Amino acid sequence: MSKNIIKPSILAGFMELLPKEQEIFNDIVDKITEVYKRNGCMSIDTPIIEKAEVLLAKSGGETEKQVYNFQRGKNNLALRFDLTVPFARYAAQYYEDLTFPFKRYQFGKVYRGERNQKGRYREFYQCDVDVIGKDKLSIYNDAWVISLADKAFKEIGIVNYQFQINNRKILKGILRELEIENTTDVMILIDKYDKIGQKCFEDELLGIIGDEKSKYLTRIFNIQGTNEKILEELLKLDINNEYFTEGINELSQVKSMLEDIGVDSGQFKINLKIIRGLDYYTGTVFETILVGNEDYGSICSGGRYDNLAENYTDKILPGVGISIGITRLFFVLKEIGFIENYTIKNKLDYLIVPIGDTISYSIKVMRHLEEKGYGVSVYFEDNSIKKKMNFANKLGVENVILIGEEEMVKNEVKIKNMRSRDEKKVDLSYIIV
Amino acid sequence: MSKNIIKPSILAGFMELLPKEQEIFNDIVDKITEVYKRNGCMSIDTPIIEKAEVLLAKSGGETEKQVYNFQRGKNNLALRFDLTVPFARYAAQYYEDLTFPFKRYQFGKVYRGERNQKGRYREFYQCDVDVIGKDKLSIYNDAWVISLADKAFKEIGIVNYQFQINNRKILKGILRELEIENTTDVMILIDKYDKIGQKCFEDELLGIIGDEKSKYLTRIFNIQGTNEKILEELLKLDINNEYFTEGINELSQVKSMLEDIGVDSGQFKINLKIIRGLDYYTGTVFETILVGNEDYGSICSGGRYDNLAENYTDKILPGVGISIGITRLFFVLKEIGFIENYTIKNKLDYLIVPIGDTISYSIKVMRHLEEKGYGVSVYFEDNSIKKKMNFANKLGVENVILIGEEEMVKNEVKIKNMRSRDEKKVDLSYIIV
Repeated sequence: MSKNIIKPSILAGFMELLPKEQEIFNDIVDKITEVYKRNGCMSIDTPIIEKAEVLLAKSGGETEKQVYNFQRGKNNLALRFDLTVPFARYAAQYYEDLTFPFKRYQFGKVYRGERNQKGRYREFYQCDVDVIGKDKLSIYNDAWVISLADKAFKEIGIVNYQFQINNRKILKGILRELEIENTTDVMILIDKYDKIGQKCFEDELLGIIGDEKSKYLTRIFNIQGTNEKILEELLKLDINNEYFTEGINELSQVKSMLEDIGVDSGQFKINLKIIRGLDYYTGTVFETILVGNEDYGSICSGGRYDNLAENYTDKILPGVGISIGITRLFFVLKEIGFIENYTIKNKLDYLIVPIGDTISYSIKVMRHLEEKGYGVSVYFEDNSIKKKMNFANKLGVENVILIGEEEMVKNEVKIKNMRSRDEKKVDLSYIIV
Repeated sequence: MSKNIIKPSILAGFMELLPKEQEIFNDIVDKITEVYKRNGCMSIDTPIIEKAEVLLAKSGGETEKQVYNFQRGKNNLALRFDLTVPFARYAAQYYEDLTFPFKRYQFGKVYRGERNQKGRYREFYQCDVDVIGKDKLSIYNDAWVISLADKAFKEIGIVNYQFQINNRKILKGILRELEIENTTDVMILIDKYDKIGQKCFEDELLGIIGDEKSKYLTRIFNIQGTNEKILEELLKLDINNEYFTEGINELSQVKSMLEDIGVDSGQFKINLKIIRGLDYYTGTVFETILVGNEDYGSICSGGRYDNLAENYTDKILPGVGISIGITRLFFVLKEIGFIENYTIKNKLDYLIVPIGDTISYSIKVMRHLEEKGYGVSVYFEDNSIKKKMNFANKLGVENVILIGEEEMVKNEVKIKNMRSRDEKKVDLSYIIV
């Protein structure tokens, strides 16, 4: 290499795909957004760069440390780290122009300076749906957003996903009943359950809330069985504060509506240990695992928040949303061999290969095929037939149209099927109607 | 407002749209990318953030001053300012894995810290096609990429566009013939022609290259008439150096192929003053004006470069590309009243409005309609009929399905056409087949 050449490379933690994988990635995105659109969600787009003081209005926490922020001129800028905060800002900013309940979807890149590790990207796509109401929002929406993820996964062809669903009010009610005050510590511990394991969890819980209460709580977390059974057992606890009652009612309604809406009962499971960290969620919360591949973490998460835009407006905007981390999802699907078996229609139906001075005529054939809706490309380069056919093979195109001077004069084209290797000469009138 | 509320706003120079305009924006993007796909272009995606030393390998110039760059940890990072440089890096990096000629399209945001002015955005979308060859690339590709923009504009419904086409080699040949050495000054001046006007241009040119030569050059720039006429007049100049001859040949071939490929002769015009600044272009160059709205500048530009990735590899990768600045295009189309007359099919075909306790049944109807491919949404909120119908009106949905308890019991649904105001009760069997 000459000394002026800089080695081409990208930053660690950024995903870049070769064209064939990119096509699959795009196909997955299209399938997800198609479900969102078909279900009445409207698209919005927000800047990737925002004013830091606006984007970080709700300051503190792990997320803020990971934010890409920088100064430009007098401005402190930050790159968005999710699509939810910009949506909260958007909803507050255009409140008067939006129709509520407002169902929006958004697909875009977000940025987090995470420690570089397998499956964790610093730039990654999210594809979100949120529905927000004015002052109130029916619990039916909680099940509805989950059903969208369900439909999306079905469209993609994923089968081993399972929604893990909970309602934060249930835990809140139990902790209230137990008169536990340091709820934050307990929440943080529950959130770590999967990471630290049952034994360690129980030991630490004992240290925070003592023997009797920790046994009570552990017993609840260990309730096994169907979704019905778990709800039954919870009701038997005979806790009567409003949080608990509301939580149970909401969770029951979500369960019942998921059934109505066609989510297979094997594909959602009440899991009382799901709380989604210290995020802004207030009711329904859920994560999505791939059964047999739980180690990769959640591929789609979300939940209900009482007041999404409280940092930007005094209007009350309750909402519920889901976020599919598509970059992560793609990584996981690649790891488990799903991507290599993903079939996609080649968008190129015909490759036209002019041989000799037949470009004008080849263009005519191209125009005709394109008007008929076919994907079509012309090989313009002056190369040997062998090279031209090699190119066709590499593209994986099924039909090659060979146009030599002889064919042109005779008003014919030669069509070669690359799979069967069959060649046939066809009169031009068969191609040009 | 309470004192903790931060006024929601975005940075100056960033575009954000309300949902209805966003739908139109997306529709325009879909139409452009559909043309690209149908013509055999493959999609790629590259990070928005790259290593500064890689992205700015070809340093200097106006662009670099505008680049958003910042430090993170030990790394100097920069946001991409176009899609061409990242593509050059991509092509060099994955050279062994790509099939040449490689036709790629890319849609994405780019960043330039431009002075904030009308129609100039700091974050804007580009939608590019480039085709690059290994060592060589046929001139036919130059016409082909322009024809893609032509098809895209036709799909969108824009009629008053005109491609302004030139070939840099022609000017290079003329300057060579005139034995002008400070070609850069002349190029910079020509590039400003439209901004400063003919009189000022001629005065400045006189100062750079003297009376005789400036008269000769001015006469060339003033050649009027059809594309054929301009080519004829150029040939009469009797300049015989290889640049000039090649330039004329290439421009003639591009013209002839644009005609073959169906670009209306009124929609492309040879314009010898188009040179695309000091960019990397080496042959064909073009811009696109909206006739009658030339002041908004070019809505699509591009050209031929002899060696795209020279900063990243010693492989020779000639290419030709186009870039549609979609954010700018959208702004211009809005200014000239095109967007307000842009019609788009409402993706929501049906809004289902449950009245009373009919949610389960409403979900059943929703599932059925969705399976048939309709866009469908359910109004879940517990509100008055009036509020529900107001919501339907605001959404602009054509068909509202009203499901009361009476309808449910009788196995009926009431369908109201919001345009004609007609209501009809339909037996469930008409809806649920």
